[in-house]
Amino acid sequence: DLGSSEAGRSIRERVPPLLTDMYQFTMAYAYWRAGRHQEPAVFELFFRDNPFGGGFSLFAGLHDCQLFLRSFRFTDEDVEFLRSVLPPATDPAFFQFLRGLDCSDVTLRSVPEGTVVFARVPLMEVTGPLAVVQLLETSLLCLVNYASLVCSNAARFRLAAGPRRRLLEMGLRRAQGPDGGLTASRYTHIGGFDLTSNVQAGFLFGIPVAGTMAHSYVTSFTCLKEVWPQTLVAMTGNPDPVDFISLTKGWLSRVCDLLGAEPRKVREGELAAFLSYAIAYPHNFLAVIDSYSVGRSGLLNFSAVALALCELGYRPVGVRLDSGDLCRQSLDVRHVFRLCSEHFSIPAFDSLIIVGTNNISEQSMAELNKKENEIDVVGVGTHLVTCTRQPSLGCVYKLVEVRGRPRMKISEDPEKSTVPGRKTVYRLVDAEGQPFLDLVCLAVEPPPEAGVPLTCFPLGCESPSTSVTPAQVTCLCQEVFTKGQITHPPSSAAETRAKVQHSLQTLHPRHKRLNEPVSYTVALSEKLYNLVTEIQRGSSNSSNFLLAN
Amino acid sequence: DLGSSEAGRSIRERVPPLLTDMYQFTMAYAYWRAGRHQEPAVFELFFRDNPFGGGFSLFAGLHDCQLFLRSFRFTDEDVEFLRSVLPPATDPAFFQFLRGLDCSDVTLRSVPEGTVVFARVPLMEVTGPLAVVQLLETSLLCLVNYASLVCSNAARFRLAAGPRRRLLEMGLRRAQGPDGGLTASRYTHIGGFDLTSNVQAGFLFGIPVAGTMAHSYVTSFTCLKEVWPQTLVAMTGNPDPVDFISLTKGWLSRVCDLLGAEPRKVREGELAAFLSYAIAYPHNFLAVIDSYSVGRSGLLNFSAVALALCELGYRPVGVRLDSGDLCRQSLDVRHVFRLCSEHFSIPAFDSLIIVGTNNISEQSMAELNKKENEIDVVGVGTHLVTCTRQPSLGCVYKLVEVRGRPRMKISEDPEKSTVPGRKTVYRLVDAEGQPFLDLVCLAVEPPPEAGVPLTCFPLGCESPSTSVTPAQVTCLCQEVFTKGQITHPPSSAAETRAKVQHSLQTLHPRHKRLNEPVSYTVALSEKLYNLVTEIQRGSSNSSNFLLAN
Repeated sequence: DLGSSEAGRSIRERVPPLLTDMYQFTMAYAYWRAGRHQEPAVFELFFRDNPFGGGFSLFAGLHDCQLFLRSFRFTDEDVEFLRSVLPPATDPAFFQFLRGLDCSDVTLRSVPEGTVVFARVPLMEVTGPLAVVQLLETSLLCLVNYASLVCSNAARFRLAAGPRRRLLEMGLRRAQGPDGGLTASRYTHIGGFDLTSNVQAGFLFGIPVAGTMAHSYVTSFTCLKEVWPQTLVAMTGNPDPVDFISLTKGWLSRVCDLLGAEPRKVREGELAAFLSYAIAYPHNFLAVIDSYSVGRSGLLNFSAVALALCELGYRPVGVRLDSGDLCRQSLDVRHVFRLCSEHFSIPAFDSLIIVGTNNISEQSMAELNKKENEIDVVGVGTHLVTCTRQPSLGCVYKLVEVRGRPRMKISEDPEKSTVPGRKTVYRLVDAEGQPFLDLVCLAVEPPPEAGVPLTCFPLGCESPSTSVTPAQVTCLCQEVFTKGQITHPPSSAAETRAKVQHSLQTLHPRHKRLNEPVSYTVALSEKLYNLVTEIQRGSSNSSNFLLAN
Repeated sequence: DLGSSEAGRSIRERVPPLLTDMYQFTMAYAYWRAGRHQEPAVFELFFRDNPFGGGFSLFAGLHDCQLFLRSFRFTDEDVEFLRSVLPPATDPAFFQFLRGLDCSDVTLRSVPEGTVVFARVPLMEVTGPLAVVQLLETSLLCLVNYASLVCSNAARFRLAAGPRRRLLEMGLRRAQGPDGGLTASRYTHIGGFDLTSNVQAGFLFGIPVAGTMAHSYVTSFTCLKEVWPQTLVAMTGNPDPVDFISLTKGWLSRVCDLLGAEPRKVREGELAAFLSYAIAYPHNFLAVIDSYSVGRSGLLNFSAVALALCELGYRPVGVRLDSGDLCRQSLDVRHVFRLCSEHFSIPAFDSLIIVGTNNISEQSMAELNKKENEIDVVGVGTHLVTCTRQPSLGCVYKLVEVRGRPRMKISEDPEKSTVPGRKTVYRLVDAEGQPFLDLVCLAVEPPPEAGVPLTCFPLGCESPSTSVTPAQVTCLCQEVFTKGQITHPPSSAAETRAKVQHSLQTLHPRHKRLNEPVSYTVALSEKLYNLVTEIQRGSSNSSNFLLAN
């Protein structure tokens, strides 16, 4: 499959195996030197807090992780560089070992991409030789952290905007680097955005692209002499080109009369820009109307050109507002469109769209959704792609098992303690079809059964245990990469996007509230809880301590 | 030059010409259709507010812009994709035009990379055929915005940390995508960081890399049986391997005695980890000592292993603290090092270093610098690379001239108005050698002269004009790309890094204060001010308005 090998090549360039922290190599050497590098080990990837003060996150970046694992291999050049930065006394045989390394002994189990997930639920489990799975840490974190963060951010913007409005991502110029922009376009689409301004994202990921004109286009015109050609052929009927400038000037007069506007305050350069654009794109006329003044110039020029297009049988598309009070202006604009539609009997003016773009944040999106307005499409840039409110997700990658023995980090800060052992996560669903609890079990445990009560131990709760009876049980873990091969074919972007919306729809609104949501419960099974207790108890008296001689 | 062509290849992959906003293409077609695509045009790149509420920014990303311009060319595949997303009625000859497009008619003038810059100063001026320079907008903004932002952020961390402490960037795992992490490593080094954890950044940009061990390494060990080999050969003298475990156990006893610590609370797994690491890296022993308890275990284990290394003639390096109150702990750790040095007569313990890493922000760095502490190296991740405080710089790209005629956007919001015409920027320096004013002149004006008074018009000031006499004058604009060729060879990273520090050193402290700095003055020359006034006046009565018939 060419697509996958192309994607594999591209991941090799985006995430070469040296794109990791130096300490992964110093540790790998120490393991190798101690003969421990082949010991079977298990790491787990999770985050400790839901982002943006919210009640959920979305899991994304899995497909890139699969491709990264498949392509993970050091070149001679990589190894030579490592030789130059590791201490001179490093055993040369270690570099031979690195040269032969790949992920043919690595297995990845994971929550499906696009799933709604919660703090402290294991998202990925990476199993393989200790030195290899340690080396993978930074790259996997880097691939999951931002993808999940920006996808979750997009889902929140979607929740704030409501389901009806179309959302356009347009953050490339403000993104954290070119690849940051591309990753943002990709995962905000999956998170619920409809369109992107990023052409390369359209090319690589099939996301619908959109865009018409900037203010610079408008201000580059000064007078009607710059409009060329000056004619347009009607859609139907007479094949002779029509003088489109004269036609539009006539409409402008009538629009000014209708609205009581002063024709001499209308910008000629702006009219020239709109005319020129309409002649180039008679089927796709959408203009930015706030370069000078919406009310005194932009809206009048747009209406005149759009009415002229209608007269020739074309359907203009709409306008974009890029400054000021978008809600109020959209109402004014819609009012003028309705007036034109009625007064000139041009029904096409009833379906013109209004695009709003002006430094939209999650909060202003939510406000916009509450206030009366006529905005059909909202474009979001900076706050969406850079995730202003919280620009990083704190995924961590923790060791949970070595040589079949569970490992646990017992920190003085209980938040930083880890949960030991290999696990499987089940999502428990109530009779209304809504998930109500994620149960983290030991992998060796039998799954919980629908209709059967079980005792579990919610994390971060006062009460130590609770009894619940699921109406349905879904297993959240899938084996997606086995011994060097991608074993679970990645979903298409469209499938993942649908999964996100479905996964969010089944979630109870109390967990989806953008502010002060109710926490979703994540709980340990009784067996896992007992293991934690046992290790904690053991740690205060057993062989973990040095009995100094 | 292989280096440059490699870099060119890599920029082509990072920033293909489709990595831009869709509206650049729709506008390019409209220009082409109107026969305006070859009109000479000038765009200017600048930002409106200094980032992070500060008094300055650094300009970075220029070299990438030069490489991008040189590699800018559409492939057949690119053009086919554009054909599929532009309206079906688009003239096929336009795609022929795109296929042949490059930057052979484009010229770039720029402030040198690594210069301290201020809001509203033109940083880059892009001159060339209207359609081409319009197409370049998004990619140039994307390359400059994040590079300048993260470089400025690093410079602020450096100011907060003081000049002496060494700074380590370690943000890859939390960066906004893989390339976000790489870009961060590159430009934080230029902004004043000494080291990076990012190996690929070391490989590509020659930044010194650092790193030793994570907590997972420590917790992967449970007992001393896992230490292998168990011996070490002394640096000098006896060539017979010494039982390093026994040697260390002896030292541990003595250290516990010295400090009155309980040996039975010392973690055996942690000691095994440190021993194993020291045997692998006897010359480079630096351990993370807070996996369990610094005071009851980590510091004791480290001291024992380090003393054993010293006995064999090695020089251990130091410790890393990754949680809790870093300042207080560093004082405790230093105290123990001094005690050991004195009590056991081991002077090497006086030069051990203490590394601190724990979610450091600019504010905590500044606090750390005020409080008493013994931290020699500070590692910074999330807050540095994602620029939490302001995750994007708002650079914009505005049209200032078409066909030799100055263009100006006159917005209802005066902040959003642009300054018309081609310009040159001069930095005026006072008798103390400190810059005090950036003077934006028309490019055709003669430069200001040292010792000669001049009248200028500060931006954003109440008083309309002021008279100043520079002691020295520096021109900030260089032609760096001319007609398809890089004409000003880019500085090396080391040169740019030095330039940043020099440029910051000459700036008066009042502008460098991290909070509530005094604004640096940016002013228009009299001629430029008059042009602005003339255009504003003209716009209220001239041919810019449509005299409707």
